Amino acid sequence: MRIAELSERSGVPVPTIKYYLREGLLPPGESIRANQARYDERHLQRLRLVRVLIDVGRLPVAAIRDLFADLDRPDPDLHHALGRALKSAPAGGPEPPATGDVATAELEVDDLLRRRGWLVSEEAPARRRVAEVIAALRRLDNAKQVEMIDEYAAAVERIAELDLQLVQAADPETVVYRAVVGTILGDALLAGLRRLAQESVSDRLFHDRTDSSD
Amino acid sequence: MRIAELSERSGVPVPTIKYYLREGLLPPGESIRANQARYDERHLQRLRLVRVLIDVGRLPVAAIRDLFADLDRPDPDLHHALGRALKSAPAGGPEPPATGDVATAELEVDDLLRRRGWLVSEEAPARRRVAEVIAALRRLDNAKQVEMIDEYAAAVERIAELDLQLVQAADPETVVYRAVVGTILGDALLAGLRRLAQESVSDRLFHDRTDSSD
Repeated sequence: MRIAELSERSGVPVPTIKYYLREGLLPPGESIRANQARYDERHLQRLRLVRVLIDVGRLPVAAIRDLFADLDRPDPDLHHALGRALKSAPAGGPEPPATGDVATAELEVDDLLRRRGWLVSEEAPARRRVAEVIAALRRLDNAKQVEMIDEYAAAVERIAELDLQLVQAADPETVVYRAVVGTILGDALLAGLRRLAQESVSDRLFHDRTDSSD
Repeated sequence: MRIAELSERSGVPVPTIKYYLREGLLPPGESIRANQARYDERHLQRLRLVRVLIDVGRLPVAAIRDLFADLDRPDPDLHHALGRALKSAPAGGPEPPATGDVATAELEVDDLLRRRGWLVSEEAPARRRVAEVIAALRRLDNAKQVEMIDEYAAAVERIAELDLQLVQAADPETVVYRAVVGTILGDALLAGLRRLAQESVSDRLFHDRTDSSD
Protein backbone atom coordinates (compact mmCIF):
# COMPACT_ATOMS: atom_id res chain seq x y z
CA MET A 1 0.00 0.00 0.00
CA ARG A 2 1.04 3.61 -0.48
CA ILE A 3 1.60 5.96 2.45
CA ALA A 4 -1.85 7.52 1.94
CA GLU A 5 -3.53 4.16 2.46
CA LEU A 6 -1.29 3.37 5.45
CA SER A 7 -2.47 6.68 6.94
CA GLU A 8 -6.11 5.93 6.11
CA ARG A 9 -6.02 2.45 7.63
CA SER A 10 -4.07 3.40 10.75
CA GLY A 11 -5.74 6.75 11.39
CA VAL A 12 -2.27 8.32 11.69
CA PRO A 13 -1.75 11.49 9.57
CA VAL A 14 0.82 11.25 6.73
CA PRO A 15 3.18 13.91 8.22
CA THR A 16 3.25 11.93 11.49
CA ILE A 17 4.08 8.71 9.62
CA LYS A 18 6.90 10.57 7.84
CA TYR A 19 8.19 11.75 11.19
CA TYR A 20 8.21 8.17 12.53
CA LEU A 21 10.09 7.05 9.40
CA ARG A 22 12.73 9.78 9.88
CA GLU A 23 13.08 8.87 13.57
CA GLY A 24 13.53 5.20 12.75
CA LEU A 25 10.38 4.12 14.60
CA LEU A 26 9.01 2.65 11.41
CA PRO A 27 11.20 0.70 8.93
CA PRO A 28 11.37 2.22 5.44
CA GLY A 29 8.92 0.92 2.83
CA GLU A 30 9.97 -0.86 -0.32
CA SER A 31 11.16 1.84 -2.73
CA ILE A 32 9.19 1.73 -5.97
CA ARG A 33 10.05 5.12 -7.47
CA ALA A 34 12.27 8.13 -6.63
CA ASN A 35 9.83 9.62 -4.17
CA GLN A 36 7.49 6.71 -3.51
CA ALA A 37 7.52 3.62 -1.35
CA ARG A 38 5.23 0.69 -0.72
CA TYR A 39 4.17 -0.46 2.78
CA ASP A 40 2.65 -3.72 4.01
CA GLU A 41 0.74 -5.22 6.93
CA ARG A 42 3.91 -5.31 9.03
CA HIS A 43 4.14 -1.55 8.78
CA LEU A 44 0.54 -1.20 9.83
CA GLN A 45 1.11 -3.42 12.86
CA ARG A 46 4.27 -1.58 13.83
CA LEU A 47 2.49 1.75 13.45
CA ARG A 48 -0.26 0.65 15.85
CA LEU A 49 2.37 -0.39 18.36
CA VAL A 50 4.16 2.99 18.04
CA ARG A 51 0.89 4.80 18.74
CA VAL A 52 0.12 2.74 21.83
CA LEU A 53 3.66 3.14 23.16
CA ILE A 54 3.40 6.93 22.75
CA ASP A 55 -0.26 7.56 23.64
CA VAL A 56 -0.84 4.94 26.32
CA GLY A 57 2.65 4.04 27.53
CA ARG A 58 3.99 7.63 27.32
CA LEU A 59 7.34 6.30 26.12
CA PRO A 60 9.84 8.82 24.73
CA VAL A 61 10.90 8.30 21.09
CA ALA A 62 14.42 7.18 22.06
CA ALA A 63 13.02 4.48 24.36
CA ILE A 64 10.78 3.18 21.57
CA ARG A 65 13.76 3.01 19.21
CA ASP A 66 15.71 0.96 21.77
CA LEU A 67 12.72 -1.30 22.32
CA PHE A 68 12.41 -2.01 18.60
CA ALA A 69 16.13 -2.74 18.37
CA ASP A 70 15.48 -5.43 21.00
CA LEU A 71 12.36 -6.76 19.31
CA ASP A 72 13.90 -6.91 15.85
CA ARG A 73 16.76 -9.15 16.88
CA PRO A 74 16.52 -12.73 15.61
CA ASP A 75 16.03 -13.98 19.19
CA PRO A 76 14.20 -11.21 21.01
CA ASP A 77 14.53 -11.36 24.80
CA LEU A 78 10.90 -10.81 25.75
CA HIS A 79 11.51 -10.36 29.45
CA HIS A 80 13.97 -7.59 28.68
CA ALA A 81 11.72 -5.99 26.04
CA LEU A 82 8.77 -5.97 28.44
CA GLY A 83 10.93 -4.33 31.07
CA ARG A 84 11.88 -1.60 28.61
CA ALA A 85 8.29 -1.09 27.47
CA LEU A 86 6.99 -0.66 31.01
CA LYS A 87 9.97 1.17 32.50
CA SER A 88 8.96 4.57 31.20
CA ALA A 89 5.39 4.05 32.27
CA PRO A 90 5.57 4.51 36.01
CA ALA A 91 2.43 4.63 38.13
CA GLY A 92 2.85 8.29 38.97
CA GLY A 93 4.61 11.49 37.97
CA PRO A 94 8.33 12.27 37.73
CA GLU A 95 10.69 11.10 40.49
CA PRO A 96 11.43 13.53 43.33
CA PRO A 97 14.88 13.19 44.95
CA ALA A 98 15.20 10.50 47.63
CA THR A 99 14.88 11.50 51.28
CA GLY A 100 15.69 9.67 54.50
CA ASP A 101 12.39 7.93 55.02
CA VAL A 102 12.18 6.86 51.37
CA ALA A 103 15.64 5.33 51.62
CA THR A 104 14.52 3.38 54.69
CA ALA A 105 11.39 2.27 52.89
CA GLU A 106 13.50 1.04 49.96
CA LEU A 107 15.15 -1.45 52.30
CA GLU A 108 11.70 -2.62 53.37
CA VAL A 109 10.77 -3.13 49.72
CA ASP A 110 13.90 -5.26 49.30
CA ASP A 111 12.80 -7.36 52.28
CA LEU A 112 9.31 -7.73 50.85
CA LEU A 113 10.72 -8.91 47.51
CA ARG A 114 12.87 -11.47 49.32
CA ARG A 115 9.97 -12.72 51.43
CA ARG A 116 7.80 -13.20 48.37
CA GLY A 117 10.64 -14.57 46.24
CA TRP A 118 10.08 -11.93 43.56
CA LEU A 119 13.04 -11.51 41.22
CA VAL A 120 13.15 -7.80 40.35
CA SER A 121 16.04 -5.87 38.81
CA GLU A 122 17.83 -3.28 40.93
CA GLU A 123 16.86 -0.45 38.58
CA ALA A 124 13.12 -1.19 38.38
CA PRO A 125 11.46 2.23 38.89
CA ALA A 126 8.57 0.58 40.74
CA ARG A 127 10.92 -0.24 43.67
CA ARG A 128 11.37 3.43 44.31
CA ARG A 129 7.74 4.15 43.59
CA VAL A 130 6.54 1.66 46.21
CA ALA A 131 9.08 3.02 48.70
CA GLU A 132 7.76 6.53 48.17
CA VAL A 133 4.19 5.44 48.80
CA ILE A 134 5.26 3.59 51.96
CA ALA A 135 7.00 6.73 53.24
CA ALA A 136 3.96 8.88 52.36
CA LEU A 137 1.61 6.46 54.13
CA ARG A 138 3.72 6.74 57.29
CA ARG A 139 3.84 10.54 57.07
CA LEU A 140 0.04 10.53 56.76
CA ASP A 141 -0.36 8.22 59.78
CA ASN A 142 -1.47 5.22 57.76
CA ALA A 143 1.33 2.91 58.92
CA LYS A 144 -1.22 0.14 59.45
CA GLN A 145 -1.51 -0.18 55.68
CA VAL A 146 2.26 -0.65 55.43
CA GLU A 147 2.08 -3.45 58.02
CA MET A 148 -0.35 -5.27 55.74
CA ILE A 149 1.86 -4.97 52.66
CA ASP A 150 2.52 -8.72 52.47
CA GLU A 151 -1.19 -9.41 52.19
CA TYR A 152 -1.58 -6.72 49.53
CA ALA A 153 1.41 -8.14 47.66
CA ALA A 154 -0.12 -11.63 47.70
CA ALA A 155 -3.35 -10.32 46.16
CA VAL A 156 -1.41 -8.32 43.57
CA GLU A 157 0.67 -11.37 42.61
CA ARG A 158 -2.53 -13.04 41.46
CA ILE A 159 -3.29 -9.98 39.32
CA ALA A 160 0.19 -10.06 37.77
CA GLU A 161 -0.34 -13.72 36.88
CA LEU A 162 -3.57 -12.79 35.07
CA ASP A 163 -1.68 -9.95 33.34
CA LEU A 164 0.96 -12.30 32.02
CA GLN A 165 -1.61 -14.92 30.97
CA LEU A 166 -2.99 -12.21 28.70
CA VAL A 167 0.23 -11.61 26.83
CA GLN A 168 1.44 -15.18 26.38
CA ALA A 169 1.16 -17.22 23.18
CA ALA A 170 1.62 -14.28 20.85
CA ASP A 171 4.39 -12.88 18.66
CA PRO A 172 6.85 -10.58 20.49
CA GLU A 173 5.36 -7.41 19.03
CA THR A 174 1.87 -8.36 20.21
CA VAL A 175 3.22 -9.31 23.63
CA VAL A 176 4.65 -5.81 24.06
CA TYR A 177 1.50 -4.16 22.68
CA ARG A 178 -0.78 -6.05 25.05
CA ALA A 179 1.53 -5.59 28.02
CA VAL A 180 1.56 -1.81 27.65
CA VAL A 181 -2.19 -1.47 27.06
CA GLY A 182 -3.01 -4.03 29.72
CA THR A 183 -0.73 -2.55 32.35
CA ILE A 184 -1.57 1.12 31.90
CA LEU A 185 -5.31 0.78 31.26
CA GLY A 186 -5.28 -2.10 33.72
CA ASP A 187 -4.31 0.31 36.53
CA ALA A 188 -7.47 2.30 35.82
CA LEU A 189 -9.54 -0.87 35.55
CA LEU A 190 -8.28 -2.16 38.88
CA ALA A 191 -8.73 1.21 40.60
CA GLY A 192 -12.33 1.31 39.37
CA LEU A 193 -13.08 -2.29 40.37
CA ARG A 194 -11.49 -1.62 43.76
CA ARG A 195 -13.94 1.21 44.47
CA LEU A 196 -16.89 -0.95 43.46
CA ALA A 197 -15.66 -3.80 45.65
CA GLN A 198 -15.02 -1.40 48.54
CA GLU A 199 -18.57 -0.12 48.37
CA SER A 200 -19.85 -3.65 48.47
CA VAL A 201 -17.65 -4.66 51.43
CA SER A 202 -18.43 -1.41 53.24
CA ASP A 203 -22.13 -2.10 52.78
CA ARG A 204 -21.65 -5.51 54.37
CA LEU A 205 -19.66 -4.12 57.29
CA PHE A 206 -21.33 -0.84 58.12
CA HIS A 207 -24.67 -0.48 56.44
CA ASP A 208 -26.92 -2.71 58.46
CA ARG A 209 -25.71 -1.39 61.78
CA THR A 210 -25.95 2.38 61.37
CA ASP A 211 -27.28 2.59 64.91
CA SER A 212 -24.07 1.33 66.50
CA SER A 213 -21.15 3.54 65.53
CA ASP A 214 -18.14 1.72 66.91
CA MET B 1 -4.50 26.12 72.56
CA ARG B 2 -4.52 29.38 70.61
CA ILE B 3 -4.77 29.54 66.84
CA ALA B 4 -0.98 30.09 66.56
CA GLU B 5 -0.28 26.81 68.33
CA LEU B 6 -2.93 25.01 66.29
CA SER B 7 -1.12 26.26 63.19
CA GLU B 8 2.26 25.24 64.58
CA ARG B 9 1.13 21.73 65.51
CA SER B 10 -0.83 21.06 62.32
CA GLY B 11 1.56 22.73 59.90
CA VAL B 12 -1.39 24.66 58.44
CA PRO B 13 -0.86 28.45 58.13
CA VAL B 14 -3.08 30.68 60.31
CA PRO B 15 -4.82 32.39 57.32
CA THR B 16 -5.75 28.95 55.94
CA ILE B 17 -7.17 27.90 59.33
CA LYS B 18 -9.24 31.11 59.38
CA TYR B 19 -10.51 30.31 55.90
CA TYR B 20 -11.58 26.81 57.04
CA LEU B 21 -13.36 28.37 60.05
CA ARG B 22 -15.24 30.81 57.78
CA GLU B 23 -16.18 27.99 55.40
CA GLY B 24 -17.48 25.86 58.26
CA LEU B 25 -14.90 23.09 57.70
CA LEU B 26 -13.64 23.58 61.26
CA PRO B 27 -16.01 24.19 64.20
CA PRO B 28 -15.41 27.52 66.00
CA GLY B 29 -13.13 27.45 69.04
CA GLU B 30 -14.26 28.33 72.53
CA SER B 31 -14.46 32.11 72.67
CA ILE B 32 -12.24 33.47 75.46
CA ARG B 33 -12.06 37.14 74.49
CA ALA B 34 -13.51 39.50 71.83
CA ASN B 35 -11.02 38.47 69.18
CA GLN B 36 -9.59 35.27 70.63
CA ALA B 37 -10.67 31.65 70.77
CA ARG B 38 -9.29 28.45 72.26
CA TYR B 39 -8.91 25.22 70.30
CA ASP B 40 -8.42 21.64 71.45
CA GLU B 41 -7.27 18.21 70.21
CA ARG B 42 -10.56 17.71 68.37
CA HIS B 43 -9.78 20.77 66.25
CA LEU B 44 -6.34 19.40 65.49
CA GLN B 45 -7.75 16.05 64.43
CA ARG B 46 -10.44 17.69 62.28
CA LEU B 47 -7.83 19.94 60.69
CA ARG B 48 -5.70 16.94 59.71
CA LEU B 49 -8.76 15.33 58.15
CA VAL B 50 -9.57 18.52 56.20
CA ARG B 51 -6.03 18.57 54.81
CA VAL B 52 -6.14 14.95 53.70
CA LEU B 53 -9.57 15.38 52.11
CA ILE B 54 -8.30 18.39 50.15
CA ASP B 55 -4.72 17.34 49.36
CA VAL B 56 -5.10 13.59 48.92
CA GLY B 57 -8.82 13.10 48.24
CA ARG B 58 -9.16 16.27 46.10
CA LEU B 59 -12.61 16.90 47.57
CA PRO B 60 -14.20 20.29 46.92
CA VAL B 61 -14.98 22.40 50.01
CA ALA B 62 -18.76 21.90 49.63
CA ALA B 63 -18.33 18.12 49.59
CA ILE B 64 -16.24 18.25 52.77
CA ARG B 65 -18.91 20.36 54.48
CA ASP B 66 -21.57 17.78 53.56
CA LEU B 67 -19.34 14.96 54.75
CA PHE B 68 -18.85 16.61 58.15
CA ALA B 69 -22.59 17.21 58.44
CA ASP B 70 -22.93 13.41 58.08
CA LEU B 71 -20.09 12.62 60.48
CA ASP B 72 -21.29 15.02 63.17
CA ARG B 73 -24.73 13.47 63.48
CA PRO B 74 -25.30 11.50 66.69
CA ASP B 75 -25.51 8.26 64.67
CA PRO B 76 -23.19 8.72 61.72
CA ASP B 77 -23.92 6.39 58.79
CA LEU B 78 -20.38 5.29 58.02
CA HIS B 79 -21.20 3.52 54.79
CA HIS B 80 -22.79 6.70 53.50
CA ALA B 81 -19.95 8.92 54.76
CA LEU B 82 -17.33 6.69 53.12
CA GLY B 83 -19.25 6.87 49.87
CA ARG B 84 -19.21 10.66 50.06
CA ALA B 85 -15.52 10.79 50.93
CA LEU B 86 -14.50 8.60 48.00
CA LYS B 87 -17.05 9.83 45.45
CA SER B 88 -15.06 12.89 44.46
CA ALA B 89 -11.88 10.91 44.27
CA PRO B 90 -12.28 8.99 41.02
CA ALA B 91 -9.47 6.87 39.64
CA GLY B 92 -8.87 9.16 36.67
CA GLY B 93 -9.57 12.60 35.30
CA PRO B 94 -12.87 14.35 34.56
CA GLU B 95 -15.70 12.39 32.94
CA PRO B 96 -15.99 12.59 29.15
CA PRO B 97 -19.55 12.33 27.75
CA ALA B 98 -20.89 8.78 27.32
CA THR B 99 -20.70 7.17 23.89
CA GLY B 100 -22.31 4.06 22.43
CA ASP B 101 -19.66 1.54 23.42
CA VAL B 102 -19.39 2.94 26.95
CA ALA B 103 -23.15 2.58 27.38
CA THR B 104 -22.88 -1.06 26.28
CA ALA B 105 -19.99 -1.59 28.67
CA GLU B 106 -22.05 -0.15 31.52
CA LEU B 107 -24.53 -3.01 31.08
CA GLU B 108 -21.61 -5.44 31.28
CA VAL B 109 -20.50 -3.81 34.53
CA ASP B 110 -24.05 -4.30 35.88
CA ASP B 111 -23.82 -7.99 34.96
CA LEU B 112 -20.43 -8.31 36.63
CA LEU B 113 -21.76 -6.74 39.84
CA ARG B 114 -24.67 -9.18 39.79
CA ARG B 115 -22.43 -12.18 39.19
CA ARG B 116 -20.19 -11.22 42.10
CA GLY B 117 -23.07 -10.18 44.33
CA TRP B 118 -21.58 -6.71 44.85
CA LEU B 119 -24.10 -4.16 46.13
CA VAL B 120 -23.14 -0.86 44.52
CA SER B 121 -25.27 2.28 44.26
CA GLU B 122 -26.52 3.36 40.85
CA GLU B 123 -24.61 6.66 41.03
CA ALA B 124 -21.18 5.25 41.97
CA PRO B 125 -18.75 7.03 39.61
CA ALA B 126 -16.59 3.89 39.45
CA ARG B 127 -19.34 2.09 37.47
CA ARG B 128 -18.88 4.55 34.66
CA ARG B 129 -15.12 4.57 35.10
CA VAL B 130 -14.86 0.79 34.71
CA ALA B 131 -17.19 0.92 31.68
CA GLU B 132 -14.94 3.52 30.05
CA VAL B 133 -11.86 1.38 30.56
CA ILE B 134 -13.67 -1.67 29.13
CA ALA B 135 -14.62 0.33 26.04
CA ALA B 136 -11.07 1.67 25.68
CA LEU B 137 -9.60 -1.84 26.01
CA ARG B 138 -11.86 -3.00 23.17
CA ARG B 139 -10.93 -0.03 20.99
CA LEU B 140 -7.26 -0.84 21.59
CA ASP B 141 -7.77 -4.52 20.70
CA ASN B 142 -7.29 -5.79 24.22
CA ALA B 143 -10.70 -7.50 24.47
CA LYS B 144 -9.03 -10.54 26.03
CA GLN B 145 -8.48 -8.53 29.19
CA VAL B 146 -12.20 -7.73 29.31
CA GLU B 147 -13.00 -11.45 29.04
CA MET B 148 -10.94 -12.02 32.18
CA ILE B 149 -12.71 -9.33 34.18
CA ASP B 150 -14.31 -11.82 36.58
CA GLU B 151 -10.90 -13.12 37.58
CA TYR B 152 -9.57 -9.59 38.03
CA ALA B 153 -12.64 -8.71 40.09
CA ALA B 154 -12.08 -11.72 42.37
CA ALA B 155 -8.49 -10.64 43.06
CA VAL B 156 -9.60 -7.06 43.67
CA GLU B 157 -12.31 -8.17 46.10
CA ARG B 158 -9.55 -9.55 48.31
CA ILE B 159 -7.82 -6.15 48.18
CA ALA B 160 -11.04 -4.34 49.12
CA GLU B 161 -11.41 -6.64 52.13
CA LEU B 162 -7.91 -5.69 53.27
CA ASP B 163 -8.80 -2.01 52.69
CA LEU B 164 -11.83 -2.24 54.92
CA GLN B 165 -9.96 -4.23 57.60
CA LEU B 166 -7.70 -1.19 57.84
CA VAL B 167 -10.45 1.25 58.62
CA GLN B 168 -12.49 -0.82 61.07
CA ALA B 169 -12.45 -0.46 64.84
CA ALA B 170 -11.90 3.28 64.80
CA ASP B 171 -13.98 6.38 65.42
CA PRO B 172 -15.93 7.62 62.36
CA GLU B 173 -13.53 10.49 61.70
CA THR B 174 -10.54 8.15 61.66
CA VAL B 175 -12.42 5.69 59.44
CA VAL B 176 -12.93 8.42 56.83
CA TYR B 177 -9.35 9.66 57.15
CA ARG B 178 -7.88 6.19 56.68
CA ALA B 179 -10.25 5.33 53.87
CA VAL B 180 -9.26 8.39 51.83
CA VAL B 181 -5.52 8.01 52.42
CA GLY B 182 -5.65 4.24 51.99
CA THR B 183 -7.70 4.34 48.81
CA ILE B 184 -5.89 7.12 46.99
CA LEU B 185 -2.33 6.27 48.02
CA GLY B 186 -3.34 2.62 47.87
CA ASP B 187 -3.90 2.94 44.11
CA ALA B 188 -0.29 4.03 43.71
CA LEU B 189 0.91 1.30 46.08
CA LEU B 190 -0.94 -1.40 44.16
CA ALA B 191 0.22 -0.07 40.77
CA GLY B 192 3.81 -0.19 42.02
CA LEU B 193 3.49 -3.66 43.52
CA ARG B 194 1.82 -4.85 40.32
CA ARG B 195 4.85 -3.83 38.25
CA LEU B 196 7.21 -5.58 40.64
CA ALA B 197 5.08 -8.73 40.57
CA GLN B 198 4.82 -8.56 36.77
CA GLU B 199 8.58 -8.42 36.45
CA SER B 200 8.91 -11.46 38.68
CA VAL B 201 6.25 -13.45 36.78
CA SER B 202 7.68 -12.34 33.41
CA ASP B 203 11.10 -13.54 34.56
CA ARG B 204 9.60 -16.95 35.37
CA LEU B 205 7.80 -17.18 32.01
CA PHE B 206 10.21 -15.68 29.52
CA HIS B 207 13.65 -15.26 30.94
CA ASP B 208 15.10 -18.74 30.94
CA ARG B 209 14.01 -19.47 27.41
CA THR B 210 15.29 -16.45 25.49
CA ASP B 211 16.33 -18.80 22.69
CA SER B 212 12.77 -19.88 21.90
CA SER B 213 10.61 -16.87 21.11
CA ASP B 214 7.11 -18.28 20.83
